[in-house]
Amino acid sequence: MSAPLRIGLAGLGTVGAGVVRLLKDRGPALAERCGRRIEIAAVSARDPSRDRGIDLSGIDFVETAVGLAAREDVDVVVELIGGAGGAARALVEAALGAGKSVVTGNKALIAEAGGTLAPLAEAHRVHLRYEAAVGGGIPVIKALSEGLAANRIRTVRGILNGTSNYILTRMEEGGTSFASALADAQAKGYAEADPTFDIDGTDAAHKLAILASLAFGVVPAPHAVHKEGLAGLTDLDISAARAFGYSMKLLAVAEETPDGLLQRVHPALVPADSPLAAVRETENAITIEGDYVGRSVIQGLGAGAGPTASAVVADLLDIARGVPPAPVFGRFFPRLAEARPARLAARQGGYFLRLKVQDRPRVMAAVADTLGDAEVSIDQMHQPHHVPNTPVSIVLTTYDTDEAVMAAAVERLARHPALIEAPRLIRIEA
Amino acid sequence: MSAPLRIGLAGLGTVGAGVVRLLKDRGPALAERCGRRIEIAAVSARDPSRDRGIDLSGIDFVETAVGLAAREDVDVVVELIGGAGGAARALVEAALGAGKSVVTGNKALIAEAGGTLAPLAEAHRVHLRYEAAVGGGIPVIKALSEGLAANRIRTVRGILNGTSNYILTRMEEGGTSFASALADAQAKGYAEADPTFDIDGTDAAHKLAILASLAFGVVPAPHAVHKEGLAGLTDLDISAARAFGYSMKLLAVAEETPDGLLQRVHPALVPADSPLAAVRETENAITIEGDYVGRSVIQGLGAGAGPTASAVVADLLDIARGVPPAPVFGRFFPRLAEARPARLAARQGGYFLRLKVQDRPRVMAAVADTLGDAEVSIDQMHQPHHVPNTPVSIVLTTYDTDEAVMAAAVERLARHPALIEAPRLIRIEA
Repeated sequence: MSAPLRIGLAGLGTVGAGVVRLLKDRGPALAERCGRRIEIAAVSARDPSRDRGIDLSGIDFVETAVGLAAREDVDVVVELIGGAGGAARALVEAALGAGKSVVTGNKALIAEAGGTLAPLAEAHRVHLRYEAAVGGGIPVIKALSEGLAANRIRTVRGILNGTSNYILTRMEEGGTSFASALADAQAKGYAEADPTFDIDGTDAAHKLAILASLAFGVVPAPHAVHKEGLAGLTDLDISAARAFGYSMKLLAVAEETPDGLLQRVHPALVPADSPLAAVRETENAITIEGDYVGRSVIQGLGAGAGPTASAVVADLLDIARGVPPAPVFGRFFPRLAEARPARLAARQGGYFLRLKVQDRPRVMAAVADTLGDAEVSIDQMHQPHHVPNTPVSIVLTTYDTDEAVMAAAVERLARHPALIEAPRLIRIEA
Repeated sequence: MSAPLRIGLAGLGTVGAGVVRLLKDRGPALAERCGRRIEIAAVSARDPSRDRGIDLSGIDFVETAVGLAAREDVDVVVELIGGAGGAARALVEAALGAGKSVVTGNKALIAEAGGTLAPLAEAHRVHLRYEAAVGGGIPVIKALSEGLAANRIRTVRGILNGTSNYILTRMEEGGTSFASALADAQAKGYAEADPTFDIDGTDAAHKLAILASLAFGVVPAPHAVHKEGLAGLTDLDISAARAFGYSMKLLAVAEETPDGLLQRVHPALVPADSPLAAVRETENAITIEGDYVGRSVIQGLGAGAGPTASAVVADLLDIARGVPPAPVFGRFFPRLAEARPARLAARQGGYFLRLKVQDRPRVMAAVADTLGDAEVSIDQMHQPHHVPNTPVSIVLTTYDTDEAVMAAAVERLARHPALIEAPRLIRIEA
């Protein structure tokens, strides 16, 4: 058996502690898999003295994370600090610069700084691996960069944020409001005290930018992702979607369009019998369409100590068994294209529309006429029961149309004198 | 760029032609992925002159497949002949013995002869790779052996045979009989003229034995798989399952039981809202439960030229980029245990039961009494509408019970004088 692989671990939060536990629990079995032991040489953490319920005996604590990069007895740095800048970025740059491989679960860092870090890793011929950054324990990075690498990818669609999926599941199954579903998620530890990045789509956009880079050969560009969050979704939207035969999801999509690569994160209706509709609570799933393989779906727990540790250790196993460093985003950095934001107007598909109008005669007809004039065909339309002379909600779905056409029609509807609030438009993804 | 990887390809059927097409189509993109070109040096096929719609210019034809193993200009042998013995086995043994890596899509060979081939590959420190053998293009071998390698696996459940899943989908959605669903599958090219191995569970058992080997560290042992096929399933079974909230699947399961590793392939009812129920037509899916990762599901097209070529070329890309040969079944051969067949009696779960009885008073009560006496609790029970004084079918589901207890109760039921034919017992998998 070869010499052990010695790691320096930065960050002993839930995930870091999970990695320590897994490596301790499963030492001999892991050594059988990769032909050598994986040892933790040193760790860094904000509070070295806190009891994490794990055995840290015999492991050096370093004072600052970046110190791990300089240690002679560290072969690989595992970065589990988080954040696109600060200590995490300083550590990863120092480690790669010192010729050490890095394993990270930091999606913000890989998405925001991948364009700087990938050439650094490739110049030093070391690994920069991030299986844990997207989809928790689901091996989707490996699927895109290795398992499906022979394919030209057409689309990647995913449910990439467990917090928002939990909220939508609660709203759909419990008929609860957004606010109470969020409170439930926080009570269960599925949402942080400040859940902004989960529910405004930022977290999903980071993950999508990484998947799009691997799938389409572009530099990760989270700022090129068109982003809409859950704000303003009502229980009516969820229940009407269900009645129309759909399930509401916060969907992340990357796809080739005539206008270029379109990356978008937004609420969307997916058919109730589609694999993505079956993704409940905190699960994640990614659908990948390739020209040879057809459609593949990969699904599992998107977060948590166990799944994330499973992904971090999978990366360590590959490094330990001598897999040579591969291009960080599937192709060597100079071969990646720039991801320019494609216009969302280039999107084609169906739409769900909610309107709140005054209860007066012929409003339904006016809505139908306005859409008809724009050549938008209505598929299903419903006006829920309401108290006479109070505001009326109208919900409808359309057949496939151009986003530009639909947006123009909605703009005309918004000017109708009976309208009480701005129309809500949600995309349908087949 | 390094020297090209030169392959010798045996078998130019649908899949072999797909591999040639993919390698020709995607040459530069593949070279970007792995740092070198992948070239076809030589091929063998039963009929060299047949037009396959692919460009074979500049490629040597060898007379017998085994000749590929001896060629100096072949680095890797790709075996797409099929069958557990004969030319396929002779070629793979010769290639490994000559120190050449092998990529194959041959599940029968890997399942039946893996115990001989793995030590041969490991002794010669070469690859024996078989991503295409299970789940078509779905990278499930890579998921089990790499992506989820840090986990202790608890269960693997899969829909591993596209032909039988197509037949069951047609029966469920079209309300057709088994015979006409099979005829439809044959007309569409999803079933062979002799579909025995697809519908009797042999094909799924081969694939399950391979997955179980990777998941549980045992020598593949298809003969240790308890196997029941689709024979005798009626449209009533399918429609009753649906009415009870389930979908009928030919399920392959490997799981740890108190009695050891239990491997089984048989029809099973899965909950209608479970991911496996959503697997339609010729799709495959595998659910893997690991202690750290939780439940992961991976789904996609289980057969066909495109998906299978995608998997073969993924294996070639790994070899081309210099990934070192790994143990063939996850651990080196001497560390694998023998897979002894566990007793099916050790299984615990719910059951679906169909009885055909004479139309006479108190038969329903007698059935309920017999089950009650055995302490089997009935969950749902239904007697479809029938013409008086003609045979009656009774269908029911039970709560979880021991297979041994259930089998004994069914044996008692079978002796009831009103019974017209042997009871049909089908397992429910939660």
